[in-house]
Amino acid sequence: MTSVNGFCNICVLLFGILHLSKTITPRTSFLFEPSLDCSSHAFHQTGTPGRVLSRFNASDVQNTTTLLLSPDAATLFVGGRDTVLSLDVSQSDGITLKNKFDWEAPKNPECNSLAFNQNCANFIRILQFINSTHLYACGSWAFKPQYTILTVDSLKVSKKPEHVKGHCPYNASERSTALVVGEDLWDADCTVSVHNLGGILLHINRREKHTTFLYGKLYTATTNDYFGKTPVISRYFSDDKNDLQLSDNSRVQKGATFIGSSYIPSEGKVLFFFREAGTEYNFMNKFTVTRVAQVCIDDNGGERVLQKRWTSFAKSHLVCQAQEQLPFNLLQDIVMVPAADAKSPDNTLFYGIFTSQWALTSGQSAVCAFRLADIKAAFSANYKTYIVETGEWKVQRNRDAILGKCGLHNASDHILNLVKKSFLTVNNIQAVGHKQLLTSKEELYSRITAQRVQAANGRMYTILYLLTESGFLHKIVLLKDGYHIIEAIQLFKSPQTIKSILVSITKGMVFVGSSEGVIRVPVSNCSFYSSCAECVLAQDPFCGWNSQSKKCIQLYNVNPNLCQDVENGNFTDQCKDSESGTLVPRKVIHAHHYEWVMLPCASSSGLERVSWRFSNHSIVPQSHYLQQQKDNLLVLVTPNTAVEFHCVSEKQGLQRTLAVFSLKPHSLGSSNHSVHSLDEDTLNSSLPLTQPKNYYVEMVVVSFLLVLCMCVLAVSIFCVQRQSRSTASPECNELSRISSAS
Amino acid sequence: MTSVNGFCNICVLLFGILHLSKTITPRTSFLFEPSLDCSSHAFHQTGTPGRVLSRFNASDVQNTTTLLLSPDAATLFVGGRDTVLSLDVSQSDGITLKNKFDWEAPKNPECNSLAFNQNCANFIRILQFINSTHLYACGSWAFKPQYTILTVDSLKVSKKPEHVKGHCPYNASERSTALVVGEDLWDADCTVSVHNLGGILLHINRREKHTTFLYGKLYTATTNDYFGKTPVISRYFSDDKNDLQLSDNSRVQKGATFIGSSYIPSEGKVLFFFREAGTEYNFMNKFTVTRVAQVCIDDNGGERVLQKRWTSFAKSHLVCQAQEQLPFNLLQDIVMVPAADAKSPDNTLFYGIFTSQWALTSGQSAVCAFRLADIKAAFSANYKTYIVETGEWKVQRNRDAILGKCGLHNASDHILNLVKKSFLTVNNIQAVGHKQLLTSKEELYSRITAQRVQAANGRMYTILYLLTESGFLHKIVLLKDGYHIIEAIQLFKSPQTIKSILVSITKGMVFVGSSEGVIRVPVSNCSFYSSCAECVLAQDPFCGWNSQSKKCIQLYNVNPNLCQDVENGNFTDQCKDSESGTLVPRKVIHAHHYEWVMLPCASSSGLERVSWRFSNHSIVPQSHYLQQQKDNLLVLVTPNTAVEFHCVSEKQGLQRTLAVFSLKPHSLGSSNHSVHSLDEDTLNSSLPLTQPKNYYVEMVVVSFLLVLCMCVLAVSIFCVQRQSRSTASPECNELSRISSAS
Repeated sequence: MTSVNGFCNICVLLFGILHLSKTITPRTSFLFEPSLDCSSHAFHQTGTPGRVLSRFNASDVQNTTTLLLSPDAATLFVGGRDTVLSLDVSQSDGITLKNKFDWEAPKNPECNSLAFNQNCANFIRILQFINSTHLYACGSWAFKPQYTILTVDSLKVSKKPEHVKGHCPYNASERSTALVVGEDLWDADCTVSVHNLGGILLHINRREKHTTFLYGKLYTATTNDYFGKTPVISRYFSDDKNDLQLSDNSRVQKGATFIGSSYIPSEGKVLFFFREAGTEYNFMNKFTVTRVAQVCIDDNGGERVLQKRWTSFAKSHLVCQAQEQLPFNLLQDIVMVPAADAKSPDNTLFYGIFTSQWALTSGQSAVCAFRLADIKAAFSANYKTYIVETGEWKVQRNRDAILGKCGLHNASDHILNLVKKSFLTVNNIQAVGHKQLLTSKEELYSRITAQRVQAANGRMYTILYLLTESGFLHKIVLLKDGYHIIEAIQLFKSPQTIKSILVSITKGMVFVGSSEGVIRVPVSNCSFYSSCAECVLAQDPFCGWNSQSKKCIQLYNVNPNLCQDVENGNFTDQCKDSESGTLVPRKVIHAHHYEWVMLPCASSSGLERVSWRFSNHSIVPQSHYLQQQKDNLLVLVTPNTAVEFHCVSEKQGLQRTLAVFSLKPHSLGSSNHSVHSLDEDTLNSSLPLTQPKNYYVEMVVVSFLLVLCMCVLAVSIFCVQRQSRSTASPECNELSRISSAS
Repeated sequence: MTSVNGFCNICVLLFGILHLSKTITPRTSFLFEPSLDCSSHAFHQTGTPGRVLSRFNASDVQNTTTLLLSPDAATLFVGGRDTVLSLDVSQSDGITLKNKFDWEAPKNPECNSLAFNQNCANFIRILQFINSTHLYACGSWAFKPQYTILTVDSLKVSKKPEHVKGHCPYNASERSTALVVGEDLWDADCTVSVHNLGGILLHINRREKHTTFLYGKLYTATTNDYFGKTPVISRYFSDDKNDLQLSDNSRVQKGATFIGSSYIPSEGKVLFFFREAGTEYNFMNKFTVTRVAQVCIDDNGGERVLQKRWTSFAKSHLVCQAQEQLPFNLLQDIVMVPAADAKSPDNTLFYGIFTSQWALTSGQSAVCAFRLADIKAAFSANYKTYIVETGEWKVQRNRDAILGKCGLHNASDHILNLVKKSFLTVNNIQAVGHKQLLTSKEELYSRITAQRVQAANGRMYTILYLLTESGFLHKIVLLKDGYHIIEAIQLFKSPQTIKSILVSITKGMVFVGSSEGVIRVPVSNCSFYSSCAECVLAQDPFCGWNSQSKKCIQLYNVNPNLCQDVENGNFTDQCKDSESGTLVPRKVIHAHHYEWVMLPCASSSGLERVSWRFSNHSIVPQSHYLQQQKDNLLVLVTPNTAVEFHCVSEKQGLQRTLAVFSLKPHSLGSSNHSVHSLDEDTLNSSLPLTQPKNYYVEMVVVSFLLVLCMCVLAVSIFCVQRQSRSTASPECNELSRISSAS
């Protein structure tokens, strides 16, 4: 029972603590607010006041599954359905269309007769810089894949589209991955901030020499047939037409699904991430595993053995599993985050989203991290060899770590025959810490991107951006011990299945492609936090409180003067000199007695505990006040009801008044409304009750008139008696005068 | 809007259908009602009026984990802590103690220093008829197992207790199983109705020749060390001291848990059911599997190879798994139900309760059935041989189905060497229908027993009796397509971990042993169902409606004249000539206006849908009436509230009025109670509200007085004026008289 804001009689109702399980509760949630402007090719701003999103929607731009950002992050190349676009994303006030290349597949009755006829269009599945002035694009072209070369500047056709096999999938709903690597195109030791994965190129520092029409080499992993059953991992645009393929089907299992790929300059290798049947396991049923496979960029294929085939192909099992529990075995998306120190590339991390082939009680999806050093270790250790005759696996000891090495295309036939048979590592690659970084029971995460960011104190933090199937973007910071969901931003009102995501680190923007267009989300909006405590509690490495300007501002450099505590959100230490809250305006609610009133109070943060405090005129049982779903309070207005209500949120001892309501009872009988509400939406499951008629005022008025009347009558009778007995008294004359006047 | 029971203005509120998931909803539930009589060695009756349970509790009888019924089902032998009892269970009015054998282990400081010191007593783990006049008993005897032979009639010691290894476990908390088979003791082709499993003997037809002190042979499977790690499967009391053991530890994995055993006369085999590490599988982590192992009763061990060892041991994997889902891999209890036709013993079924080593979303426990024919097929097909050198399994083709056969103790050394290596079948034994018969998300089933019963129309049905960890007995009938939980009877107020169960088919009784004593539950109580519809809806094969006597009676024979429909509970066809309900008395509720009233209505069946119907004086919004948790109705009493409320349950179109309430509003202002309730317990989460003061009556009285007063005043003034101008009128004289009088 504390005294707050001058109230002398304060009751504190601490309602049941909301689901505080940290597993999935974002600190701040921004819900979807649709834009009113729906004109064609329109850019518009949407979102809550706290989170302004830029959208590029156009009726003829659909399924923007492929996104590619220019090195200067000013232009976003978008591959959609039957179209390639370039968008100017350099202006803060909007996204504008720069160029458009229409690339429609002809109406094909043969295609339309297929079971997958919703995919009978040209869905662009690869967009890559093939050199500094040209773009490579591959589209499914109604189950007859085509590729083309476009100029970066104007999206003009530089090489006419032509049919091609093994570059991108026949069926646009199949996953595939591709990237371009070229000695002439890329610095071997350039800083690849976040590389492309799942067909998504993120942000690459490129050499400044323009070598026009000298192509980089294209590394692809895709299914290569109508039904998406035949997996291929290949290299195209090789020197001397020395394109490479997988040697046979057993290397990648039929029905494999390719998720992502990554170029590792320090190793001279390209890594492919995919899932396939785990044939080395012998469980009750088919068991799918997540793999990482490697190929070397210097591979030229063998001379006699493995001609035109990879001599460097090897694969291993990525395990996202907590102790003794079932693994999250199905990779959904993966992103590479380079080591903080460019000199130790072995600390490069891969963050993957996983689901499980079984319905697990532990959750729907999980995030695991894998270290490059662990992947390297698995590839340089022993291998398994499948003995076709017996159907069994034998261990192939890897003497001198020859297997898994680059440069084996020059090796002896004996070694190449060994390579041909032994491509699966004995050791699995365990996730960092042998555990999941996070698991979510509620959310099915579909896409991931990530970046490192330096906090005010100079410490590096990893930020994960996760797209949920329900249409939210979760921004999560990984802490020393766990994680914290900083924000959950609703991007789509309804779930969107086709999605892509990339982050521009230099511009501080996240781009999301969906079936309806492109959305740009700033990585942070620090100004949303209006007090030092809120700014620190956000635990957002991008934001810090400036005590001079009394503002929560975005960090660009290390700045120890800013108040910030990413690890703990401890505002008590950080905000010693700052006021911790802002004034909230008081809302006056007019209501009738015996009417139910809904007082809305929405805490923006799921981690806060909301309670209601109210003043009382008298002692009233708490049962008069019913807390409804969410944090709203449903109040029955009675003559005894409190008149002032405070909605207070609390986190780590910080009390923040979110709303103040004054109840003003109406004069009686003037309304028939049974429920008075401030927020129609929150009322759906409220408890409407009629207002019973109370005759108190009427009775008082009538009683007063009765008393008055009786007084007059008494005086009147007194006078009459007096008059009848003797002469009229002055009072009685006065009374007679009144009577005459009436 | 129908007209029911003469109401002209009936509103029908069909509230949200209660959780109708058939998975776990029993039709009728009987909750625990503790007995008041708690005297020592007391028999008492407890339970609801619908279900009377007989209990035998005694302060010195605890942990009655072992139950054995005499062939005439008149005597129940009970093995508890430090004691063996014989109870007379033949009297319907109670259970009485016949004899008692105290068999205490001495206080042993060595034992008490062990980690398991709560088990430092003599827990009787085996009770078996060793012949027609004697009982074999084995107890853990504070980690130094002892056995003894007692007389059946008086529980006198016939052979002094002596230490023994391999009969029953050292640690009483370890599971074990044992049974006695003897050529001289049992008919080879006798009808074993339901055999003993998990140390539970059920009901056996025994030969009538008494061969005193000629023992049957004891088959046991138990752990055989302090820590319960060493599993042994053995035979004792063999002819010529030719007792048999497992040949080596690899046959049953270290740490195996034995669940049950079964004698199959048609095969001359004993089957053991257990779980152990599934070493033939290669999954991410240790994977436990459920096994069935066989030994032949004619086995005498090999001459040179496998001397004094089983030559007939083989094991297979029992799979309780639905398509593509994770298996329920941990057997908890299993019961044998002989084939309906004794001439085709291959149709013998085994019903097992399974849980999973993982937390599955599909449920906590499942029941699977296995057919003897499928078990035989697995044992006569190919075997796996473990190659120690390579750590791999090879397939051993079973030419002429030699492996798994009985009589191999006479075979050549070559064959016996093959038998020694090849004891695991290649084929798994799938559950009947390759699926679970039932899965339960809520209940953890711990023990099972079962019986076949013939319905009124002659069809055979299987009844499962399942004990839940929460202290309930579920009685379930297996239907053509699914199952139906007929009853859920609460036996224990709090969960009981040590339990045993057996059914007496001839007496129609289920016996349950717990840590506190023995409970006897009749297999049915048909008289609970008071109408034809309820009797048929119960779908209980034991019960049928007799149209003549208008009673729901227990079936003893096929009787097509009784109304019964076990498969569908279709009472419309069955109860054509019978009335379908009984009259319910009306309850009068006195309440104040603006008071909340809780109207209780408890449907005994979770499968029924409860709705409320009420008469209205005027049109009132339904929102006045709030249905609380369960089926109770919370009503705000207003001048407009309905006066009569009917609680109606509905199943398959049958409407049954469960309760009728009349609301009588009190005179105003005479009570301060804010909530009026008929059932205090159901009110815990109700919505109490104060009754606002209504001044209507007061206002009417005051208004009347005001009008009267004004009339008097008006007349008075009129007279005064008249008097002052001229002579008094007769009316004014009258007024003056009144004034004078007042």
